[in-house]
Amino acid sequence: MTSYTGIIESIAREIKPLLNKGKVATYIPALSRINPQKFGMAVATVRGELFTTGDATENFSIQSISKVFTLAMVMDRMGDSLWDRVGREASGNPFNSLVQLEYENGKPRNPFINAGALVVTDCVIFENEDPLTGLIDFVRNCSGNPSIDYDREVARSEKETGHRNAALANFLKSYDNLANDVDRVLNLYFHQCALSMSCVDLAKSFLFLANGGTDPVSGKVICGPRQAKRINALMQTCGLYDEGGEFAYRVGLPGKSGVGGGIVAVMPGELSVAVWSPGLNTAGNSLAGMMALELFTTYTARSIF
Amino acid sequence: MTSYTGIIESIAREIKPLLNKGKVATYIPALSRINPQKFGMAVATVRGELFTTGDATENFSIQSISKVFTLAMVMDRMGDSLWDRVGREASGNPFNSLVQLEYENGKPRNPFINAGALVVTDCVIFENEDPLTGLIDFVRNCSGNPSIDYDREVARSEKETGHRNAALANFLKSYDNLANDVDRVLNLYFHQCALSMSCVDLAKSFLFLANGGTDPVSGKVICGPRQAKRINALMQTCGLYDEGGEFAYRVGLPGKSGVGGGIVAVMPGELSVAVWSPGLNTAGNSLAGMMALELFTTYTARSIF
Amino acid sequence: MTSYTGIIESIAREIKPLLNKGKVATYIPALSRINPQKFGMAVATVRGELFTTGDATENFSIQSISKVFTLAMVMDRMGDSLWDRVGREASGNPFNSLVQLEYENGKPRNPFINAGALVVTDCVIFENEDPLTGLIDFVRNCSGNPSIDYDREVARSEKETGHRNAALANFLKSYDNLANDVDRVLNLYFHQCALSMSCVDLAKSFLFLANGGTDPVSGKVICGPRQAKRINALMQTCGLYDEGGEFAYRVGLPGKSGVGGGIVAVMPGELSVAVWSPGLNTAGNSLAGMMALELFTTYTARSIF
Amino acid sequence: MTSYTGIIESIAREIKPLLNKGKVATYIPALSRINPQKFGMAVATVRGELFTTGDATENFSIQSISKVFTLAMVMDRMGDSLWDRVGREASGNPFNSLVQLEYENGKPRNPFINAGALVVTDCVIFENEDPLTGLIDFVRNCSGNPSIDYDREVARSEKETGHRNAALANFLKSYDNLANDVDRVLNLYFHQCALSMSCVDLAKSFLFLANGGTDPVSGKVICGPRQAKRINALMQTCGLYDEGGEFAYRVGLPGKSGVGGGIVAVMPGELSVAVWSPGLNTAGNSLAGMMALELFTTYTARSIF
Repeated sequence: MTSYTGIIESIAREIKPLLNKGKVATYIPALSRINPQKFGMAVATVRGELFTTGDATENFSIQSISKVFTLAMVMDRMGDSLWDRVGREASGNPFNSLVQLEYENGKPRNPFINAGALVVTDCVIFENEDPLTGLIDFVRNCSGNPSIDYDREVARSEKETGHRNAALANFLKSYDNLANDVDRVLNLYFHQCALSMSCVDLAKSFLFLANGGTDPVSGKVICGPRQAKRINALMQTCGLYDEGGEFAYRVGLPGKSGVGGGIVAVMPGELSVAVWSPGLNTAGNSLAGMMALELFTTYTARSIF
Repeated sequence: MTSYTGIIESIAREIKPLLNKGKVATYIPALSRINPQKFGMAVATVRGELFTTGDATENFSIQSISKVFTLAMVMDRMGDSLWDRVGREASGNPFNSLVQLEYENGKPRNPFINAGALVVTDCVIFENEDPLTGLIDFVRNCSGNPSIDYDREVARSEKETGHRNAALANFLKSYDNLANDVDRVLNLYFHQCALSMSCVDLAKSFLFLANGGTDPVSGKVICGPRQAKRINALMQTCGLYDEGGEFAYRVGLPGKSGVGGGIVAVMPGELSVAVWSPGLNTAGNSLAGMMALELFTTYTARSIF
Repeated sequence: MTSYTGIIESIAREIKPLLNKGKVATYIPALSRINPQKFGMAVATVRGELFTTGDATENFSIQSISKVFTLAMVMDRMGDSLWDRVGREASGNPFNSLVQLEYENGKPRNPFINAGALVVTDCVIFENEDPLTGLIDFVRNCSGNPSIDYDREVARSEKETGHRNAALANFLKSYDNLANDVDRVLNLYFHQCALSMSCVDLAKSFLFLANGGTDPVSGKVICGPRQAKRINALMQTCGLYDEGGEFAYRVGLPGKSGVGGGIVAVMPGELSVAVWSPGLNTAGNSLAGMMALELFTTYTARSIF
Repeated sequence: MTSYTGIIESIAREIKPLLNKGKVATYIPALSRINPQKFGMAVATVRGELFTTGDATENFSIQSISKVFTLAMVMDRMGDSLWDRVGREASGNPFNSLVQLEYENGKPRNPFINAGALVVTDCVIFENEDPLTGLIDFVRNCSGNPSIDYDREVARSEKETGHRNAALANFLKSYDNLANDVDRVLNLYFHQCALSMSCVDLAKSFLFLANGGTDPVSGKVICGPRQAKRINALMQTCGLYDEGGEFAYRVGLPGKSGVGGGIVAVMPGELSVAVWSPGLNTAGNSLAGMMALELFTTYTARSIF
């Protein structure tokens, strides 16, 4: 049995000078007020251990990390028909780009760019009578934390400033790639981005992806082994916006990031690891978080490569 | 004094075989129901003559031709500040493209692509207390026809199917290039596209552009001579969607087209000419209308080149 | 009879403060050594008059202006088959862009962007046994100046630094849109760009375009009236790189520019006007030259609009 | 100790119906003549075992697979300075696209698209006095087969038809991103693509990537463990042209393909596997080869995810 305590505490010390280097997201007041000195990290292993450091139990806005939850919700039920509406390739473009969407006739490149995530959210609505409750239940179930909820202020702010996402949703609708009303899809999307969770919550709730789809602690089957493997492949391909290659090169794990400063990564068969530091690099990923995960795979000498 | 009667009647006979070749716009029920055999043509000269043939007095949906009216409304009052928000170059892209808009950070290429027209419509709202009434008054004034109005069914349909334009408007808003609410801008835009006019109305209402900004019949000053010249230059550069070069090459006059099948062109110092035939070519311009205008400049041996 | 002497001398005074504002082209040593204070202007009328000011008889590198000569050489003989290989629309992209060429499968947008001009040059080779001699003879014939030649140093430098044009030519070849060897096409292209002419030469040699294809002084038929009209339309649409709309808006004449600092424009039925000032604006057009032509159409109150 | 014999023989039977479904590359006569029924597969394990089926010892043109060898040659010596000249992200565009190269100012997205591989080849020339001999020696050393050579006919054909690559190389040169002459870089590039190897050669020569940079059989150190891990990450991100996501999703291993119909993949810590079937899918990857590798990770229940 390995203890990760020493490693993650070393990392927390080492990344300290980087905490001021990133830029906190400012497009929403609630995000821009976050203290950039915050840093948390949590490791959950398939044997049921949990290791934490820093602000690992403090909630933050998970933003795009929520796209993994909505994808997991629909992948089992929809099967391959999902891939008629959204692709599985890296985009080579910013996360909110409309360019590629136009060149490729309204089929988003993958489920983790905003356009693709909107299509997935549209599927969540189709599959659930009360989709927001369904999503929150799903996340509570994955994490084992029944108190997880969304941040009302963030959800409202997302809506007020979400013209770019409204453009994407209308664009998808013009290509007939949304089944539901634009406003309904946007509403759920803004709520999922506003989910508020801690590193501990995230590490626990991604553990099924390190364990073939089944939560190793509770024994709950979240998805099948094929789906788990494929979600990991998708995160590897397109989970870090336009920095997926950088993340593969430096970290070497499948992962998903959000502009709230969180990143979650998965070491199949072993563990999941979540990190939070609000300062972002120019690609929109947590600057200190990237380094923390790079150090983690360096110190543990483990990666998928 | 030239009579254009013989010429336009010859043209009407000659283009007959083309009336079935184009494709009537189908995105709105009201447009798709139009009889493709309709053909009208009207020539208005600066000396006050009017020559017509075919269905020249029948109303149709002027669609994008309305962009010339809104531009004329704001150009005088806004002066060069308008060009901080919209460019003056041909786009080299389809009329409703978002690609270029993204590469050029939310500044539309010109006032006649949809994105640019939305910015102009935003300015109309800024300059008028009751902008829809202001626009209708302006068009009635230009044409001398006090009964011109918009088609309620078309306006409603535009709204219901206008996801692409909603995408453009939200996209502009995300770049802070709309001052008013997205919905308010879209609402006026959908109404201006639904204006219902005849070839006679259009030929008369564009005559000020052939006469240095002043209507030669009524003597009303619609805009200054510099503005008239510049509107002509803009129509020449970007009035025919992505077929401006084709129109310059074949017809050789500044002009503006709409997906309702109308095209209006201006011979500076002499006349304006409007043509209507609902069947469109692949670029979205009236197929028989393009040929009618090509024959017109061939038979009159007149063009700006 | 109008004398343009007063007007062009006023213009020469008025643009003086602009001579230092542009940036002389630096990609070739021979161009970068030009004195930025040079300014010349020449007006040739269809009645055979010639008006000049400043350095109007000094030779400079005509660069892209040569594209009009090669186009005129092939348009008559090739007819509409030329347009299978090159389009007639404004590009909305920089003059040496490969982007659009790729999206449109190797068919350049128009004959005045570099890619399109390379296709035209390929046609010149096809139509002439000794194409360089043929081109020089054509230009001497148009201008009435038997001493016109190309600048050996410029031609050599173009070749040494012409990697972008070599990329374009190879790209066209990969789409099978060059009939001749890449090196042979590039060789002629680099020589045509190196043609050395004065404002007087250029004004005289473009006069056939103001007179339906026939030189009004010598009576030589350079091309038919339809071709002359169409070359004017093409210059109007795409003669000023990505600033064709700006030129239409401010000047209102068909024209063609070159990075040597020359611009030639045509007032159909009346005159041609050439201007030279080596300092370029950011679009690659002569900064003072643009202003000189804008003043010319303002003071003469004449334009095609 | 696992025997892979049964598994790969099952696969060989199962993919048989697919052998006629792909399209053999036709741009070179030597490639187009290949019998599409050819199929070979070889597995080399870090314990020194070798398992083969079908035409596993027959030589074929490795084409783009050679990009891994040149990258391995320069990565150690150049260190991070390589990444100033070429990126590490998936391109989201066809392998020979110039579009992105223009938008990103001549810095190719990654070392496995053609533009990036040309930059790497330029580095090979810089680092080796006789670069072609150096490359062949390197490949012979990795594979343990001293008779590996390039195919003269293929090399010559590549040159004759390589206008697109010549366009890319000239384009890179215009951005000053090639140190050597365009022709010299192209010459080596065409030779590396013409390397002729078998599945057995490829499986053996990629084994160092499954073993931290050291050939487990010969004990030779090809590169350091960090470099090996990073080459795997780069293959994962961008080794399958524009189908990297598809390969990750279906196969789940880092790999590299070539238009000769070969694909090599690496299971870190365990094995390398090479497959050959000349028929390509629309993305330019071996159609049956993709399926063979998908079945391989399905039957072995192993992948990096």
